[in-house]
Amino acid sequence: MSPEEFRRHGHAVVDWVAGYMERVRALPVGPQVAPGEVRARLPAHPPEYGEPFEAVLADPDALVVPGLTNWQHPGFLAYFPASVSGPSILAELVSAGLGEQGMLWSTSPACTELETHVLDWLVELLALPDRFRSGGAGGGVIQDSASSSTLVALLAARERASGFRAAAEGADPRLVVYASDQAHSAAEKAARIAGLGTDRLRTVGVDDAFAMRPGHLAELLAADRAAGRVPCMVVATTGTTSSLAMDPLRPVGELCREHGAWLHVDAAMAGTAALCPEHRWIHDGLELADSYCFNPHKWMLVNFDCSAFWVADRSSLLRALSVLPEFLRNRASESGEVVDYRDWQVPLGRRFRALKLWATLRHYGAEGLRRHVRASVRLAAELAARLRSDPRFELAAPARLSLVCFRHRDGEDATRRLLERVNAGGRFLLTHTRLRDRFVVRVAIGNAATGAEDLERLWKLLDRLA
Amino acid sequence: MSPEEFRRHGHAVVDWVAGYMERVRALPVGPQVAPGEVRARLPAHPPEYGEPFEAVLADPDALVVPGLTNWQHPGFLAYFPASVSGPSILAELVSAGLGEQGMLWSTSPACTELETHVLDWLVELLALPDRFRSGGAGGGVIQDSASSSTLVALLAARERASGFRAAAEGADPRLVVYASDQAHSAAEKAARIAGLGTDRLRTVGVDDAFAMRPGHLAELLAADRAAGRVPCMVVATTGTTSSLAMDPLRPVGELCREHGAWLHVDAAMAGTAALCPEHRWIHDGLELADSYCFNPHKWMLVNFDCSAFWVADRSSLLRALSVLPEFLRNRASESGEVVDYRDWQVPLGRRFRALKLWATLRHYGAEGLRRHVRASVRLAAELAARLRSDPRFELAAPARLSLVCFRHRDGEDATRRLLERVNAGGRFLLTHTRLRDRFVVRVAIGNAATGAEDLERLWKLLDRLA
Repeated sequence: MSPEEFRRHGHAVVDWVAGYMERVRALPVGPQVAPGEVRARLPAHPPEYGEPFEAVLADPDALVVPGLTNWQHPGFLAYFPASVSGPSILAELVSAGLGEQGMLWSTSPACTELETHVLDWLVELLALPDRFRSGGAGGGVIQDSASSSTLVALLAARERASGFRAAAEGADPRLVVYASDQAHSAAEKAARIAGLGTDRLRTVGVDDAFAMRPGHLAELLAADRAAGRVPCMVVATTGTTSSLAMDPLRPVGELCREHGAWLHVDAAMAGTAALCPEHRWIHDGLELADSYCFNPHKWMLVNFDCSAFWVADRSSLLRALSVLPEFLRNRASESGEVVDYRDWQVPLGRRFRALKLWATLRHYGAEGLRRHVRASVRLAAELAARLRSDPRFELAAPARLSLVCFRHRDGEDATRRLLERVNAGGRFLLTHTRLRDRFVVRVAIGNAATGAEDLERLWKLLDRLA
Repeated sequence: MSPEEFRRHGHAVVDWVAGYMERVRALPVGPQVAPGEVRARLPAHPPEYGEPFEAVLADPDALVVPGLTNWQHPGFLAYFPASVSGPSILAELVSAGLGEQGMLWSTSPACTELETHVLDWLVELLALPDRFRSGGAGGGVIQDSASSSTLVALLAARERASGFRAAAEGADPRLVVYASDQAHSAAEKAARIAGLGTDRLRTVGVDDAFAMRPGHLAELLAADRAAGRVPCMVVATTGTTSSLAMDPLRPVGELCREHGAWLHVDAAMAGTAALCPEHRWIHDGLELADSYCFNPHKWMLVNFDCSAFWVADRSSLLRALSVLPEFLRNRASESGEVVDYRDWQVPLGRRFRALKLWATLRHYGAEGLRRHVRASVRLAAELAARLRSDPRFELAAPARLSLVCFRHRDGEDATRRLLERVNAGGRFLLTHTRLRDRFVVRVAIGNAATGAEDLERLWKLLDRLA
């Protein structure tokens, strides 16, 4: 495809995407296909001969859109907010067009330095501790997901806790990891991948607001040390997936210091709130953390994948992950003056992902992003107030930031039925969780397309179906 | 940014990318900046207020392009071919615009089923063993990189070798991994991440053509078993990074069967060659493999990230990686009728990456991609013939497929100086490796923009500088 053809087809694809943005509201939000239905429409065998791009561009409407769950629909209030935005989408296009590989500084200085710079900007924007800045011993990097951030934190923690012998000698069987029973499943997945195993993940109990109980953590730490085990890492969550519960970072961090454990703070969904000074309490005590992540691809209008991850001291990370084969040796790396991000992550290759963060920050500014956060929080507060004042419903957790968890007072069956009927309508998609073993509906606000009128409509639907 | 504005700005971005494609040939291929130079041009503080997108679109030229290593330049012959193509770039744009999350079938049936389908297509296109097809116990998935494919293979192998106890109990310290001294550093990185450690990675010697010696592998396996250790996995490489050496899959696979070790075959760079029947010898014995990967983002005109990975029996993988928190439970998953790809990879979230594979296959067809492969192989053969017949040079490895490794007969200093002078010219970027501890220049052909006239120019340059 020549540049001239690319120009022509590219305009058509841009128009297609713009058209999808315009009509997504009219599509059903949830999936409308049965298992196997998408595949059944596809040719059984791959094409021997190519087709004009016009024919390829007919595929999304014919084959793809009918099988989507429409994450950009204003009624998408499931899982977590994952709005994409014009500047971010177009920055992805630039990144795809450049086709850079940022594995080493020398394979793309711009990819590397823009990433370091924008991650430093985010430290300033969220008022994160200075120790995460790249100027000292710390620094930030973009991972694909919070799962990978948790894993990479654990690999660094494992290296440090084993006296920097894990890279050579393997996972020390005495190491133990701690997370609350509300922590994301990524903690368990990381413990498995890193070779510790689920058996060495301790589950810390939570209080009435679903936040980790430091008292219980202290007991577990003491018991493990008494038994000759080594506390490796504590995963504290700033905004749990189920209810946006906030683990108390300060007492947890003090316990980590006392017992030599690495503190990783997972703020994947909620961290964006710290753009606003009034929400920065969520990070109280964060200066005690060894690593931290939040996902601009959740609530900050940046396309997946973009999980922003920082360490206070990058040396453990580098000692855990740096392997230097001859074919990657180069003068810039040997000078010690550059960052080679391949040593900060699981994969070797890496896309130019800083561009979408850059474009989003440049186009909206801190002020524009704060407006988006505040609008989400306001909508959530309004919905929570309505649910709270209606005798048929009860809030299942303190309403925090942009998440509302509730249930029907008639119990699990009524709550489950309500959820199913809302979703069956095709205008909203909500998901569920369990809190204190009770079935709970989650309304995850933060989608940029969701307006007050959508929430009004949701409320009317809940009112009617309840 | 409204859909209308997106349309307008999107056209401008498409034009910018088309313009970059047109002028990349005139840019220097290698980086022209010193460490810190890109950052020095960026504003120290993040923007408080947003700017019109027109201003943001001025950034790539002002701030990014001067700091690039131009991977799409026709003279880019470094590392590995990584050409992007119009259909793939535009499919990335569609994927970015849809903003789908394919972690579960139900979160995007189209993302999941298109991926399964296209991976089955690739089995047919490359004539891979039927056991990798999704219809039976196996199946394919897109990973971000061959590093992640190797890691995921090791996690599955570790699970099986430990009697399915590693997920709970951690990495069994008796497990051992084997790879040749020419294998990619990803094998060592995976052994570290999985908690085995570098000490439990055995290095198998190679023959004169840099291929793994099965005799040495047999000795190592026997010695480890005699010492009570457990052979976990052998990484065989079909096309090593340094010299495209081909490990003999059949005898290696037979040894794996005999000793109960998982065979993972890494064909990241060379696998694309199997589109052409005349190159399918590279996969002789692949039916003995438990897992396999090749990277369409290397030589098949698909944008990074797209590493195609298959397992013959997905159950070990699922037992290693499946964690099901309440908030992800859904009826489709419980029915057992769907694939949830989150259990096949490290991260939870995933982009709609199958679209770019789909669009590339649809637009070029098997026939078009074969033409691209054959053109690369022909160019490499011509360059190799010239080097072979010139008394100043010698080939440092058998010239295979699209890679040519050579050195100056005057020795390491002359070879190194030649490489540095070629790269300093700005029209070509080559990289090096070491083979039998001798410094070697690698010419990695396969960039779609590279034509016969470019290789002619490279030859003249080598001729002049030598």
